[in-house]
Amino acid sequence: MIETRTDLAMEAFENTDGGPLPGVRVSHWEQDGIEITEVVVTDNEAARQLGKPKGTYLTLESHLLKERDPDARLAMAALLGEEIDRVLPEGDGAGPVLVVGLGNRAITPDSLGPGVVDRTLVTRHMLGGPLKGNPMESVCAIAPGVLGVTGIESMELVEALVKQVKPRAILCVDSLAARDSRRIGSAIQLTDTGIQPGAGVGNHRKPLTAQSVGTPVISVGMPTVIYAATLAKDAFAWLNARTGDGDAHEAALEDMERSLLEGELGDMIVTPREIDSIIQDAAGIIASGINRALQPRLSDAEIAAMMD
Amino acid sequence: MIETRTDLAMEAFENTDGGPLPGVRVSHWEQDGIEITEVVVTDNEAARQLGKPKGTYLTLESHLLKERDPDARLAMAALLGEEIDRVLPEGDGAGPVLVVGLGNRAITPDSLGPGVVDRTLVTRHMLGGPLKGNPMESVCAIAPGVLGVTGIESMELVEALVKQVKPRAILCVDSLAARDSRRIGSAIQLTDTGIQPGAGVGNHRKPLTAQSVGTPVISVGMPTVIYAATLAKDAFAWLNARTGDGDAHEAALEDMERSLLEGELGDMIVTPREIDSIIQDAAGIIASGINRALQPRLSDAEIAAMMD
Amino acid sequence: MIETRTDLAMEAFENTDGGPLPGVRVSHWEQDGIEITEVVVTDNEAARQLGKPKGTYLTLESHLLKERDPDARLAMAALLGEEIDRVLPEGDGAGPVLVVGLGNRAITPDSLGPGVVDRTLVTRHMLGGPLKGNPMESVCAIAPGVLGVTGIESMELVEALVKQVKPRAILCVDSLAARDSRRIGSAIQLTDTGIQPGAGVGNHRKPLTAQSVGTPVISVGMPTVIYAATLAKDAFAWLNARTGDGDAHEAALEDMERSLLEGELGDMIVTPREIDSIIQDAAGIIASGINRALQPRLSDAEIAAMMD
Amino acid sequence: MIETRTDLAMEAFENTDGGPLPGVRVSHWEQDGIEITEVVVTDNEAARQLGKPKGTYLTLESHLLKERDPDARLAMAALLGEEIDRVLPEGDGAGPVLVVGLGNRAITPDSLGPGVVDRTLVTRHMLGGPLKGNPMESVCAIAPGVLGVTGIESMELVEALVKQVKPRAILCVDSLAARDSRRIGSAIQLTDTGIQPGAGVGNHRKPLTAQSVGTPVISVGMPTVIYAATLAKDAFAWLNARTGDGDAHEAALEDMERSLLEGELGDMIVTPREIDSIIQDAAGIIASGINRALQPRLSDAEIAAMMD
Repeated sequence: MIETRTDLAMEAFENTDGGPLPGVRVSHWEQDGIEITEVVVTDNEAARQLGKPKGTYLTLESHLLKERDPDARLAMAALLGEEIDRVLPEGDGAGPVLVVGLGNRAITPDSLGPGVVDRTLVTRHMLGGPLKGNPMESVCAIAPGVLGVTGIESMELVEALVKQVKPRAILCVDSLAARDSRRIGSAIQLTDTGIQPGAGVGNHRKPLTAQSVGTPVISVGMPTVIYAATLAKDAFAWLNARTGDGDAHEAALEDMERSLLEGELGDMIVTPREIDSIIQDAAGIIASGINRALQPRLSDAEIAAMMD
Repeated sequence: MIETRTDLAMEAFENTDGGPLPGVRVSHWEQDGIEITEVVVTDNEAARQLGKPKGTYLTLESHLLKERDPDARLAMAALLGEEIDRVLPEGDGAGPVLVVGLGNRAITPDSLGPGVVDRTLVTRHMLGGPLKGNPMESVCAIAPGVLGVTGIESMELVEALVKQVKPRAILCVDSLAARDSRRIGSAIQLTDTGIQPGAGVGNHRKPLTAQSVGTPVISVGMPTVIYAATLAKDAFAWLNARTGDGDAHEAALEDMERSLLEGELGDMIVTPREIDSIIQDAAGIIASGINRALQPRLSDAEIAAMMD
Repeated sequence: MIETRTDLAMEAFENTDGGPLPGVRVSHWEQDGIEITEVVVTDNEAARQLGKPKGTYLTLESHLLKERDPDARLAMAALLGEEIDRVLPEGDGAGPVLVVGLGNRAITPDSLGPGVVDRTLVTRHMLGGPLKGNPMESVCAIAPGVLGVTGIESMELVEALVKQVKPRAILCVDSLAARDSRRIGSAIQLTDTGIQPGAGVGNHRKPLTAQSVGTPVISVGMPTVIYAATLAKDAFAWLNARTGDGDAHEAALEDMERSLLEGELGDMIVTPREIDSIIQDAAGIIASGINRALQPRLSDAEIAAMMD
Repeated sequence: MIETRTDLAMEAFENTDGGPLPGVRVSHWEQDGIEITEVVVTDNEAARQLGKPKGTYLTLESHLLKERDPDARLAMAALLGEEIDRVLPEGDGAGPVLVVGLGNRAITPDSLGPGVVDRTLVTRHMLGGPLKGNPMESVCAIAPGVLGVTGIESMELVEALVKQVKPRAILCVDSLAARDSRRIGSAIQLTDTGIQPGAGVGNHRKPLTAQSVGTPVISVGMPTVIYAATLAKDAFAWLNARTGDGDAHEAALEDMERSLLEGELGDMIVTPREIDSIIQDAAGIIASGINRALQPRLSDAEIAAMMD
């Protein structure tokens, strides 16, 4: 069976037949109106089966985000901030946090990362001497795939910068592909596993992980697309479930899947028409969560005044 | 049967059962390596059946465009220029041609029109006195949906401008939706029927036609998306054809179609991942065709020097 | 004596020898830490002498703006809002207010108008039926000189739009030239006289006034440049004052002025290096004042939520 | 005497009293309608006096560039290409050339560097294996000061990249300040000395030189501004020359200069109103020269086709 592509660990788990999977611990709860799913992958065999490396994956979901509900937005930013704070290594003046906004600004559904970088409070250049007494933590940010950097892969540029600024942690933001279109604009995944090759809307060719750069890498992402092949497969699954003649179609389906994935559909993306405003909204929420987590001694109003 | 959405008249015709349709004349030929399909809709009943108003629709196709073949690009620009020249009313100093680039620059697959406007040779502001002796024709251009104009519908702004500049013809450029994903980036449609409500990736709410503005409206478009609902329907059709049990699925299919079109998929678009560079290429080709047609007394080199 | 160019009526008055001028009434006061100068030009001879048409010119100044003082920013936005409200014709559902952001986004010191348009709460397209009961006033906005509109003069486009949307008032925003460089980024002029030919950094060639469009035109501007010729003249004046041999230099000065104004310096602008951030700040303050004045029944928080 | 700021070595030399200066060799000639001035600084004392480090400075000037003369543009691009080729270390597969476009895209007169990067043919990411047989040389490019990189100084980012991509040479492009306004848009300086602290419109705080990065650094720049203080000083000089009472003014002048340079004028820039189009033109010419020099085995047409 050909795998269905998703960047969300919770969907990769849903894709398995649904029973408990050894090496995977799944929890689900609600807080402040936000549904939270935690998937912890604890052994290599489970990682292989899910196509997700060992680590913790937290998904925060609120379908009110798409309706631009102000309370849901605030709740999401606050909760995301808390969760980022929980996974981030302690500060102690041990170097800045480097925020990396992956993706290409010129391709709307791939532009979440640059959008978040634009809204991140950057302080490293203002902190001349020792940080003692200054309430601000050191933060720098880069959107390596925007125009203005060419002939150099995003991950290469990040690697180069890591050697230069020696961050205590990297916080990556990326546009993701999901399986379920309802998660576009409403789910945010936070993980401590970094970015894997092939992940994200931009299909990164190189990893950005603690192993690849020698620094903890936390990544935050939101689905902005589903793949056309996924959509077609889901349509078949739906039809099969409905007509009940799954067996008869098996050969046809396998044939179809191959042609879908190898043909031009394999490289097409499905996205809401209003993806531009979805991204802008999400970039604001995610940046707000990041700014809260990275600047624990500044109030929201102080952060806003500095970003102005 | 629920209609499958396409902005190409040739696909609307292909959607009918394939036999000759009274009131529609279809011709097909090749020139300079480009496949040309002409659909002429001559009566109202045929217009209703196709969902396309009476008029002439010319589609120029070259699958080499996507491979960025330089000869195919030149041939397409040259042929498009000739065909625009054929449908354009004569100049005679009778007012400028107004090029209207529809669509929203911030949404990649909807940004073809603004991209063409950026590359159009605009001359109206340079032509002070009578045009006699000056080799340039008067051309002005607007991209009404770009940032910088708000609270005013694109079509309202165009109407207002038409009253002000009194153009002898309007040449609209828009991003289109197709049924067949292979036409994205490879087919250009030229028609003398203007823009209908509901057409284009941006789904214009008001018409832009000779009737609505009192000036001939020629429109040029290229498919940049297919609709998710179309894709799902095509997958079913494929499966039906393959398994041969079409009848058994009929109820399921109708049910499915309704849920597809009414549900959230109805508003999702499917687009190639590399849509950004497809649009840039196409904008260059279409603008080159337009500049040739609108400036018959300037050479390519002179146009290039003035655009520089 | 060759005139020194300034778009501020208060500076035009300062340029005269300083005594009372018949037909001009000047008042000066302070409110909330902001210095206010009102110049009322009441007769034609005074208008000719000042180079400013009859009408009321209000200048609000705070040198704390350049230091990005948050209280000064709030005070300025609030006061500007009150003053705009005072000069604006009553609403009564009598058509929208059209905000016109003059200037060219691609030229930093000329980009104040487009920047304000980006931050203006636009509502006209959301107000379908009668306005009764809806707390929002109808507002539309255009930045006619941004890319995307070419071959058509800004003022022509505004004229065309005025005929289309029939606004009850026009509120223009433009970048101005001052004589005193300290007013760059710290002074805002509000006038009921519209825009005169030759005014603004972009040197508009046509007027935008109640006479030219048949609708009241209020204009708001901030100095973003001084002219190089002004600077050179001031240097001479300084030197003359210092050395006391004014008479000896007279012939030289006249000669110099002519060569300055007719030579290439006449078309050069002097601007602070950090003009980009000055414009961004000022655009936020001016838009805030406009939004308050145009939406008297919305709170600041409601406006912010809608702009988000 | 307070130094007059200029980034052009030829103007720094003109600022000295004009006689021969030990340690400086100045030559002047014309080729293809372009005036060429070569200043070679050979000893440390001369370097100190001129405020320019030891090295070779070539200035190419054509006042026809501002008139957008097509022949002058071609001649300038060709000559610049030849001169860059002359100073560039040999290729031999010894690593890419890194083109660095300094400056801030958001500040018009500081945006020359990013504009050139946009037009540079970048090939490094396409050259997988050994370069043998491939006609393209490896080139990568970065505009470190554009939005998307924050909290990290441009020079730090360049240093980091140099370690990563190990270029055989760096080619910097920057906006310069001149003393004579006629050189804005008409003179291009090429030097083998890299970028010094305090140079350029953006006033770089750190050097980018062979010493600082361990790789040859060639820099190309064009004046886009003069400083307001320079302008005022020139006005005095003019007046002094004209009235002949230089001595009487000496105290006044020194006083004035101090107040000019220490006051706010010291940070103001003077630039032509049409600086936006000047920069666009110049970016095209400089990029054309760079592309010719860096890709000696590609024809102009091949370069154009690849950039398309």
